[in-house]
Amino acid sequence: MIKIGVDANGGDKGVEATVPGAMRAISMFKDIEIVLFGDENKIKPLLTKSERISIVHTTETMDMGEKDPIRAVRNNKNSSLCMAMYAAKNGEVDAVVTSGPTQCVVMAAHLIIRRLKEMERVALCPILPNFDGQPRLLLDVGANVELKPEHLGQFAVFATVAAKEVLGIKDPTVGMLNIGSEPGKGREFDKESYYYLKDLPNIKFCGNVEPDELCNCPTNIVVSDGYSGNIAMKSLEGTAKNMARMLKQEIKASLGGKIGYLFMKKNLKRFAKRMDTKEVGGAMIFGIGKPVVKAHGNSDGYAFGSAIKQVVQMVKADLINKVVMAFPKEEENKNE
Amino acid sequence: MIKIGVDANGGDKGVEATVPGAMRAISMFKDIEIVLFGDENKIKPLLTKSERISIVHTTETMDMGEKDPIRAVRNNKNSSLCMAMYAAKNGEVDAVVTSGPTQCVVMAAHLIIRRLKEMERVALCPILPNFDGQPRLLLDVGANVELKPEHLGQFAVFATVAAKEVLGIKDPTVGMLNIGSEPGKGREFDKESYYYLKDLPNIKFCGNVEPDELCNCPTNIVVSDGYSGNIAMKSLEGTAKNMARMLKQEIKASLGGKIGYLFMKKNLKRFAKRMDTKEVGGAMIFGIGKPVVKAHGNSDGYAFGSAIKQVVQMVKADLINKVVMAFPKEEENKNE
Repeated sequence: MIKIGVDANGGDKGVEATVPGAMRAISMFKDIEIVLFGDENKIKPLLTKSERISIVHTTETMDMGEKDPIRAVRNNKNSSLCMAMYAAKNGEVDAVVTSGPTQCVVMAAHLIIRRLKEMERVALCPILPNFDGQPRLLLDVGANVELKPEHLGQFAVFATVAAKEVLGIKDPTVGMLNIGSEPGKGREFDKESYYYLKDLPNIKFCGNVEPDELCNCPTNIVVSDGYSGNIAMKSLEGTAKNMARMLKQEIKASLGGKIGYLFMKKNLKRFAKRMDTKEVGGAMIFGIGKPVVKAHGNSDGYAFGSAIKQVVQMVKADLINKVVMAFPKEEENKNE
Repeated sequence: MIKIGVDANGGDKGVEATVPGAMRAISMFKDIEIVLFGDENKIKPLLTKSERISIVHTTETMDMGEKDPIRAVRNNKNSSLCMAMYAAKNGEVDAVVTSGPTQCVVMAAHLIIRRLKEMERVALCPILPNFDGQPRLLLDVGANVELKPEHLGQFAVFATVAAKEVLGIKDPTVGMLNIGSEPGKGREFDKESYYYLKDLPNIKFCGNVEPDELCNCPTNIVVSDGYSGNIAMKSLEGTAKNMARMLKQEIKASLGGKIGYLFMKKNLKRFAKRMDTKEVGGAMIFGIGKPVVKAHGNSDGYAFGSAIKQVVQMVKADLINKVVMAFPKEEENKNE
């Protein structure tokens, strides 16, 4: 039986999203149990099916006002987020799902569950919607602000295993986010990283990927220093959101638009679904000793259920052990 | 009479776009003359109105295959692009418009017309479409890959004058592209730049702007190191293009969609126009001794005409002299 720890108090909607999400996940998988870390007085009225779902009571939530994530984690040990992380560290659950504030989630995973020794940095890895319907991995998008080429290499190895084992992609290709397609493009960091990735075994590196290709991406994985990845990700999200808003506004602006809408309602819904991240789940946190998924802060029950589904797939794929095996065993070599 | 130099051979469409664009601009302004640098055998058949338009013949075009822009400029002195730049340097024209390859345009402007001594770096500054219909300036988006806080300061001063004089914004506000809104966010460069801009006179600095706000931007100007600005700009363009493609695909996918389209044709056209850069013109090159506008490579005649209109406004506003006046006069102070 797989045990998933859920930060039930987290996210904009709290238990209104996490409890329905947990029930949705339970109905999807016969072989999982869910532990809800959260306020049992709020959870119980919503828990209409409690089969394989247990509650560990805490009324505390991660302090959203705290700007320093390290201090936030240290001062909120009894928050639902930290309690779920401690349960993962102690082996009481196999993985954690939360829609808490991103930097706190990354820091809590880092400080409580701890990094794998193979990974010098932690990465935040969302799944990008793609024009061809095939999901893509982009990492890091904000767990770091500056990185070395070796870190991009570790991310590439981790993501290659994840793309294979979790997304079912046979021979995942890796690209590097850069402002131009040629090898000599970008900052010194980009030039060095290009040649580092090119020579790295265990990954299939295909060169630079320009940001305008992200929605129609030639590779399955795109690695990036956390800063540029964050810029690209947020530009993409902001544009998509604003375009959807403008489209709605223009359609509502006239009777013709409203009548037209009735005819193409289904088409527009399919369009919205293609751009929607609700189906996909959340961002994976790579580099930690247990699978952790960070769902969108504004996730509803459906989206939160997808995030739990995603973490279950990570556990079932035995992702963490497979990643560890993919790295060369330096210490063993030394002992020989 | 204002004289505009046009690189007539440049861009994906060459004379097919630049010649109709020039004729469109001539009909907009009674007080301008245009010099077309390009192949007169190709230009003449298209030039149905030749009033105030002259031709300087050259069959050569900037070599698009050359990856090194410095070498490209040095080896293509008789290209239409370089000839237009030499004419600006020698005072034969007051400004240049081209839709040639971006890096070559930046380098040709730099090497031929030369930088203003007040500006240590050159910036590429497109006009972003915004949700509220008010255009925004984003710079630098790719003339540089690494910058110092002082360079962002110089860009902010230049763009403030341009927003006031060319876009007619009364009291332009300046933001800095960053991954978070608080002052302590980002890399060391971002933290230093934040405080540098905060203390800079002659600009109205309003703090960090996150990339997801770019289409709905709280400030009139956003400054950025060339690398991050390029990432943001290209992510935005790529998302907009791919979303438009998906929308078309979904509408065409069924009869209902096609009928709906007939009803909301006008609405969708207005939507497309709001996202379109054709109305806006091109990217301005800031830091050079003459106004230079780089139109999109795939500009048609209409878009190229808008780019000429934009450069005429820059000349009429006496932009370069006003920028020079906005910088503190260090040498004069020394002499006192």
